[in-house]
Amino acid sequence: MTERPANAHQAQLLRLLRDGGPNSRARLGDQADLSRSKLAVEVDRLLETGLVAADGLAASRGGRRSHNVRLNPRLRFLGVDIGATSVDVAVTNAELDVLGHLNHPMDVREGPVAVFEQVLSMAGKLKAAGLAEEFDGAGIGVPGPVRFPEGVPVSPPIMPGWDGFPVREVLSQELGCPVMVDNDVNLMAMGEQHAGVARSVSDFLFVKIGTGIGCGVVVGGEVHRGVTGSAGDIGHIQAVPDGRPCACGNRGCLEAHFSGAALARDALEAVERGRSAELASRLETNGTLTGADVAAAAAAGDATALGLIREGGTRTGQVLAGLVSFFNPGLVVIGGEVTGLGHTLLAAIRTQVYRQSPPLATGNLPIVLGELGPTAGVIGAVRLITDHVFQPA
Amino acid sequence: MTERPANAHQAQLLRLLRDGGPNSRARLGDQADLSRSKLAVEVDRLLETGLVAADGLAASRGGRRSHNVRLNPRLRFLGVDIGATSVDVAVTNAELDVLGHLNHPMDVREGPVAVFEQVLSMAGKLKAAGLAEEFDGAGIGVPGPVRFPEGVPVSPPIMPGWDGFPVREVLSQELGCPVMVDNDVNLMAMGEQHAGVARSVSDFLFVKIGTGIGCGVVVGGEVHRGVTGSAGDIGHIQAVPDGRPCACGNRGCLEAHFSGAALARDALEAVERGRSAELASRLETNGTLTGADVAAAAAAGDATALGLIREGGTRTGQVLAGLVSFFNPGLVVIGGEVTGLGHTLLAAIRTQVYRQSPPLATGNLPIVLGELGPTAGVIGAVRLITDHVFQPA
Repeated sequence: MTERPANAHQAQLLRLLRDGGPNSRARLGDQADLSRSKLAVEVDRLLETGLVAADGLAASRGGRRSHNVRLNPRLRFLGVDIGATSVDVAVTNAELDVLGHLNHPMDVREGPVAVFEQVLSMAGKLKAAGLAEEFDGAGIGVPGPVRFPEGVPVSPPIMPGWDGFPVREVLSQELGCPVMVDNDVNLMAMGEQHAGVARSVSDFLFVKIGTGIGCGVVVGGEVHRGVTGSAGDIGHIQAVPDGRPCACGNRGCLEAHFSGAALARDALEAVERGRSAELASRLETNGTLTGADVAAAAAAGDATALGLIREGGTRTGQVLAGLVSFFNPGLVVIGGEVTGLGHTLLAAIRTQVYRQSPPLATGNLPIVLGELGPTAGVIGAVRLITDHVFQPA
Repeated sequence: MTERPANAHQAQLLRLLRDGGPNSRARLGDQADLSRSKLAVEVDRLLETGLVAADGLAASRGGRRSHNVRLNPRLRFLGVDIGATSVDVAVTNAELDVLGHLNHPMDVREGPVAVFEQVLSMAGKLKAAGLAEEFDGAGIGVPGPVRFPEGVPVSPPIMPGWDGFPVREVLSQELGCPVMVDNDVNLMAMGEQHAGVARSVSDFLFVKIGTGIGCGVVVGGEVHRGVTGSAGDIGHIQAVPDGRPCACGNRGCLEAHFSGAALARDALEAVERGRSAELASRLETNGTLTGADVAAAAAAGDATALGLIREGGTRTGQVLAGLVSFFNPGLVVIGGEVTGLGHTLLAAIRTQVYRQSPPLATGNLPIVLGELGPTAGVIGAVRLITDHVFQPA
């Protein structure tokens, strides 16, 4: 088991090295606002624990050359992103660089036992490839609300069999390291904040459009999870009064009108009505249609596919306009698989938000696609666990 | 000019005395988690500055009796709440007890010069009544977005003449004390948090239904103002697709369908159509109809008035349901003048939120009326300014 920092100064130094990479003692002291002697004491202690390693001499700033330090290059973290239909597992070093990343299709409804067997097998493969001997911590994202302090999914609508399953405890035992669990969309938001388009932004929304739709809410640099861990559950906000019936029992929910699942259903309907030769040929080839097929058809110029994406973007934009009025964020990031829908989607969302929200809230509001794609979740996961292990025990 | 605390410990002690009232040194040391010697040093310094006063001997806890201290009983703060159609001004001591409170009808559209003349005259009356000699700080709420750090209203839609007016600077000069300015709804939220129904709740929404509709958003105990100070501007969220035209240029905004102004308009329309004898007789008596008339008619059992309130509550509930899904608060408080509409309104809002938001977000979510009525704003205002003056300069 990795040692933990002994105090807040050490925790701060570890996070500076995680986020900024190797650094000279002198610059680190400036950034942490620590005196030379205090810095020396804390860095020496971190070297003793093995969390930090010496890294040669720094370039001269005039005067005596400072020694470089970095996080121990042998530290390894595991990031796991369990989606509705696939599992991503990645290994990173302590600077959160991805050293290896595997993806495997898997239905979350197979339940926690089957899913974690898969996760452990993937982690084993990454070890066998020489990327890690053991893990110093693991972060896990699941596609539903999480009681965060305990790391337990609660009432996850698309995850039968997961309600109350002690994910954190079980995986911590299996992996032999500290584990933290969060909602997958929260982790994607943290990933984009750490290494993507939301770097240095402290108040933003991350909207994931995948099988369903969810939102990560970041306030003052921290994920806002809400009192029961369900903040950002925007898929069931009413987008169309008396609209389509939704699995939740209401009508007109955003997810019932736009999501990977709704898009696939609308595409099938369009083929049945003979409205798209492009989608029909894809259905014949693949035997089924998904959001990705609609994206490909749209890229090929299919008017029906483009229309579906535009309409979905408009619905999403209607809901987002309300959230932008309410929350007044500095940035809105659109991510998830459906980002393959690209700029048609983005244009429809932007049009709606800029039209409906007050000018004061949108005057300087970028609405952009995420930068990290499928790695956003795993990077957020290792960010979460390193936030945890790089704080005093 | 009042002295300011010299360090974070002193600031903490001042806030403990503000929020908990007079206390013994011993208990104060426990609450602040300060050693006996450290506490003695800091309290003695606060006594020297005049911020704190001795208050006799405490009851014995066994052993030597501890001395009581309290905030200097001569400290005076001014709370000002500028609404769309009236001005509230109150004087409090440093424990934020209201010593005197005046209300004056005034149209905010008369502009800042006329409004502040009125405010200063009301403050003068409170002084003349012997409630204060001078003020140690003043908090001001205005009915529009505020660039908080500078204390300047920005693009306030219902406040022509106020855009960019240096409220903080001007009032600070006139009153000769530190001044802080915020949106009026944010201050009402802080008021209910300090002394009302949201005491000890750290994540909640305060919805003000007055001439317009606005929302105070409290996250982790702090007001969330958004990147341009417009967070909580929910009056222009779309409640009815292609609904009534709104002053903002869009259609179907919540405010266009429900607010004090919309209610007055709907009541007039009902009278014109001969649908309410009760409202007709009130119109004849008063020459005009307001939200208060609708409340009174509803209280007298008028079916049309009750219907208007119920419909307004449903519209408000539809918008709130989305915000509850998104934000997952621990409490929703309904306040403002229209709380005279009482339980009919509350029942309609609750029905809609509990029906439309996910059970995980509403399972344990109280939706209640505010407790402080028209004093919420002025108490929030003095809370804001004491937060400011009770922190190190």
